[in-house]
Amino acid sequence: MTQSQTKPQAKPRSAYPLFVTFATRWRDNDQYGHMNNAVYYELFDSAINKFLMDAQILDMAGGSGVFLVASSGCDYFAEVAYPSDVEVGVAISRLGRSAITYDLGLFVADAKMTAARGFVVHVNVGHLGGSPTEMDEATRAKCAPLLTAAD
Amino acid sequence: MTQSQTKPQAKPRSAYPLFVTFATRWRDNDQYGHMNNAVYYELFDSAINKFLMDAQILDMAGGSGVFLVASSGCDYFAEVAYPSDVEVGVAISRLGRSAITYDLGLFVADAKMTAARGFVVHVNVGHLGGSPTEMDEATRAKCAPLLTAAD
Amino acid sequence: MTQSQTKPQAKPRSAYPLFVTFATRWRDNDQYGHMNNAVYYELFDSAINKFLMDAQILDMAGGSGVFLVASSGCDYFAEVAYPSDVEVGVAISRLGRSAITYDLGLFVADAKMTAARGFVVHVNVGHLGGSPTEMDEATRAKCAPLLTAAD
Amino acid sequence: MTQSQTKPQAKPRSAYPLFVTFATRWRDNDQYGHMNNAVYYELFDSAINKFLMDAQILDMAGGSGVFLVASSGCDYFAEVAYPSDVEVGVAISRLGRSAITYDLGLFVADAKMTAARGFVVHVNVGHLGGSPTEMDEATRAKCAPLLTAAD
Repeated sequence: MTQSQTKPQAKPRSAYPLFVTFATRWRDNDQYGHMNNAVYYELFDSAINKFLMDAQILDMAGGSGVFLVASSGCDYFAEVAYPSDVEVGVAISRLGRSAITYDLGLFVADAKMTAARGFVVHVNVGHLGGSPTEMDEATRAKCAPLLTAAD
Repeated sequence: MTQSQTKPQAKPRSAYPLFVTFATRWRDNDQYGHMNNAVYYELFDSAINKFLMDAQILDMAGGSGVFLVASSGCDYFAEVAYPSDVEVGVAISRLGRSAITYDLGLFVADAKMTAARGFVVHVNVGHLGGSPTEMDEATRAKCAPLLTAAD
Repeated sequence: MTQSQTKPQAKPRSAYPLFVTFATRWRDNDQYGHMNNAVYYELFDSAINKFLMDAQILDMAGGSGVFLVASSGCDYFAEVAYPSDVEVGVAISRLGRSAITYDLGLFVADAKMTAARGFVVHVNVGHLGGSPTEMDEATRAKCAPLLTAAD
Repeated sequence: MTQSQTKPQAKPRSAYPLFVTFATRWRDNDQYGHMNNAVYYELFDSAINKFLMDAQILDMAGGSGVFLVASSGCDYFAEVAYPSDVEVGVAISRLGRSAITYDLGLFVADAKMTAARGFVVHVNVGHLGGSPTEMDEATRAKCAPLLTAAD
């Protein structure tokens, strides 16, 4: 992946239709006393899959849909550290035939602007070992409320 | 972060001047039986800091230099899973005044091409809580052997 | 560590004076689709340090007190899995001169009995690199409300 | 789990018939600059499952055998920290009808004595969701070389 040339900007809460809250953990902090950069992706992942399960797009037991991560990225603006609670704002910036691009914002509790912003590209492969598969209309309809104008 | 528009391509081993080897762990695999997307960043981080410590740029005990991650990203091409050993190829694609952009490639043991490619932008802040600080000539000289042509 | 010979038993919520709530994460589940056994210790750690910080025994910024883990253990009774919220019950089963033994119970949201029970022995070392140090009276007084009869 | 009353002792390399090597990772270190106590269990897990896969007892693809962790514990003697390589010594201290108790020792590279010692009780459940199941003779024969006298 090559880095985007546009200077990234923090976003307000209004940019995200959905929020998922997480308590941070002692082990999230690395040797520098703040949340390790890889942990942001753990939270992004968890927020996205929470949406997919709550919307009954992803059924962990039945395995009706499987999405793999094709690409991800994050810009870090402000320090985040255990023991703060954090919220992940979830939007969809692109809804393709087989892929969903999520726009994610991490907020420290009560903060107005994102401490970090990321994206994750999920590709629907139907089943483990499968290849990219067109999403059905029911799935697209469930994703539509999260769709926001690209920035 | 917005996603780059260029279609990412796998790279050969010759693109990386330095390699760091890691054993994978049972917990690296997520519910889908392959290495979770966040774990790649743990390995990128570990390879970069290994370089910085071996080159005596970063001294964990003395704390003479502190680099924070300002931005990161990864494109995932092929499945990686415990218990395979993996290697992280490390190059520097940009050596700025206070920032280093690392170009990273993850190879499954013996594979010729990257299973994933990522980047990490490290900003030198001198000390924890500090602001971006120009790197000295000794640091730049130690980074120079990893500098590769941008792609 | 050798395994205790007593058959471990689940405990009710009434055994714990304090509870700390955590959202689980996608990556907590391992390849078998349930929370990996190491993650329980991440949650135990996080609950204990939350108590220590809220009680102002541990001050992350000032570093007035440092506790190291000398011993830990866990018995697993029932499956726990993302995306369930979980609660960690915290009690102190032994308050020594320099060491605190925590008795921990992990509850899946709304469950009456522990899904797992663990212990952690924390030794006060005063500062990083220090040796076991007697706790002061103020610290002991703050710990007293969590002290429960050993089982 | 209640803590064992016997004072734990470090062990030499000769106590372990099998060793598995791991590179540590930047994120293994917590805020105190040494390997977080939960990470030891990640390494124990990974060493055990490596043995099970190499011995063809556990087949990740076919899923012929599934072992769940019923109990685990660790005593920590000496500091371990990234970027040291570590080795996990693996022995079996008890081979029951359906359960295997592993005796594990963590060595920092080149050290003669364990920096930590742990145990893990694995219960064979045959398949996910299954109940404790007697191990067959082939499995028991493959485990026998790791069996050591209990301490």
